[in-house]
Amino acid sequence: MENKKYVYELEFKVRDYECDIQGVVNNSVYQNYLEHCRHEFLLHAGLDFTDMFKRGIMAVVARADIQYKFPLSGGDKFVCRLNVEKKGIKYLFYQDIYRLPDEKLCIKAIITAVTVINGKLSVSDELDAAVLKFG
Amino acid sequence: MENKKYVYELEFKVRDYECDIQGVVNNSVYQNYLEHCRHEFLLHAGLDFTDMFKRGIMAVVARADIQYKFPLSGGDKFVCRLNVEKKGIKYLFYQDIYRLPDEKLCIKAIITAVTVINGKLSVSDELDAAVLKFG
Amino acid sequence: MENKKYVYELEFKVRDYECDIQGVVNNSVYQNYLEHCRHEFLLHAGLDFTDMFKRGIMAVVARADIQYKFPLSGGDKFVCRLNVEKKGIKYLFYQDIYRLPDEKLCIKAIITAVTVINGKLSVSDELDAAVLKFG
Amino acid sequence: MENKKYVYELEFKVRDYECDIQGVVNNSVYQNYLEHCRHEFLLHAGLDFTDMFKRGIMAVVARADIQYKFPLSGGDKFVCRLNVEKKGIKYLFYQDIYRLPDEKLCIKAIITAVTVINGKLSVSDELDAAVLKFG
Repeated sequence: MENKKYVYELEFKVRDYECDIQGVVNNSVYQNYLEHCRHEFLLHAGLDFTDMFKRGIMAVVARADIQYKFPLSGGDKFVCRLNVEKKGIKYLFYQDIYRLPDEKLCIKAIITAVTVINGKLSVSDELDAAVLKFG
Repeated sequence: MENKKYVYELEFKVRDYECDIQGVVNNSVYQNYLEHCRHEFLLHAGLDFTDMFKRGIMAVVARADIQYKFPLSGGDKFVCRLNVEKKGIKYLFYQDIYRLPDEKLCIKAIITAVTVINGKLSVSDELDAAVLKFG
Repeated sequence: MENKKYVYELEFKVRDYECDIQGVVNNSVYQNYLEHCRHEFLLHAGLDFTDMFKRGIMAVVARADIQYKFPLSGGDKFVCRLNVEKKGIKYLFYQDIYRLPDEKLCIKAIITAVTVINGKLSVSDELDAAVLKFG
Repeated sequence: MENKKYVYELEFKVRDYECDIQGVVNNSVYQNYLEHCRHEFLLHAGLDFTDMFKRGIMAVVARADIQYKFPLSGGDKFVCRLNVEKKGIKYLFYQDIYRLPDEKLCIKAIITAVTVINGKLSVSDELDAAVLKFG
């Protein structure tokens, strides 16, 4: 997986309110970036997170394993890159954040997601189809 | 209104992640404090914000007028005090934040809320009854 | 002031994590948008907020008066437009948020800021020069 | 480590603004809870995070591995419990979140932290002494 090229990427800029007293992006904020990138990836694949939720299909994070390699600071530009694969009923999102323009690796994350349909752990055919296009 | 005593108060402690690079609570976070205090006041008055929402009754902020008098820092304890009055279809929440234990005034806010029921600007009898108990 | 055209604008897209249980952007998040827009405006005018802070010059919000006209929802695109004028030692930022592409007015805000230099309420010549270019 | 009893715990209540459109606490917010709990634990052990930062000692998260077992909802009370051990230059914080009063396990996390002193990966004697009291 490590060497596979990414299937999606999204550029951001750090906003000052996302930084804490250390002058760097607070650890929890990277999860916001990763989530936004996943939801934009789903949109790109034809699926709207909120629309799915309203139809009873919840994509739920089961585990977040985030390595903090290098901190982003106020004003930094960065790109969040994403790969996805399916393992059983789990979707593994490999999400890495690189500072721009120097491509310094900042975050290396694996986010494990599952699907809950009408309250039950299930497989969503439309999510499968969307992910398999890219996985 | 200014001299009227408060009808509700809630104590908090600043969390480090709420502070920005200036080492003080970020301006937007005070709105979080004020909202949480209003929702706890409603609970105290017998109304649950989420439960009301699920029944189609949305309490909506129409205006927030917040004076920043003195900044709170990481670790500070403070109390959020509240008064409420009704003016036409509006609820005016007078919400002030004082640092503890020295009672230094930090925030002086007037939050104007209205009620939207099933998508229409309306009056909620249960919200009225709850607020009038205190107003 | 109302009829004057804006001097700066910045486009955003709502991120799902910025929405609350009502499915709309939480009230406090608009202050994040407004702050980011002001800081980007300052950059555009040649001033870096964090750099100024490190040199002892703090731009501080003294008052935020925000009218919530219409809520933004997950996925909405919007533009934050800004005007600024100086009144005595105060800077008044007139900041309005419009949903895109229909230009629906969502937020009408006046943010009052002052400058604190090395702990004392002061006037910053460089901030003045930057703002007067546009004001 | 799993069976060792916790050395610190802190009670919280979910605030409505921490919930997203799914009506549950947003995934990133748990990191806020975990961070606040660690900082309060450090205070309990005699160390102030902000004070250390000002003296050039930065406690930095190198990795966050968070298992989401069960979601917290608006209004839920919960307790964040903590253990810590030292492995080489790393501190491993074992942090679990249980809903109250039913003690349902919600979060199982391992947060790996290191110390950076004046910009260099180092060992802080005072942090060591504080942690070893409990580890």
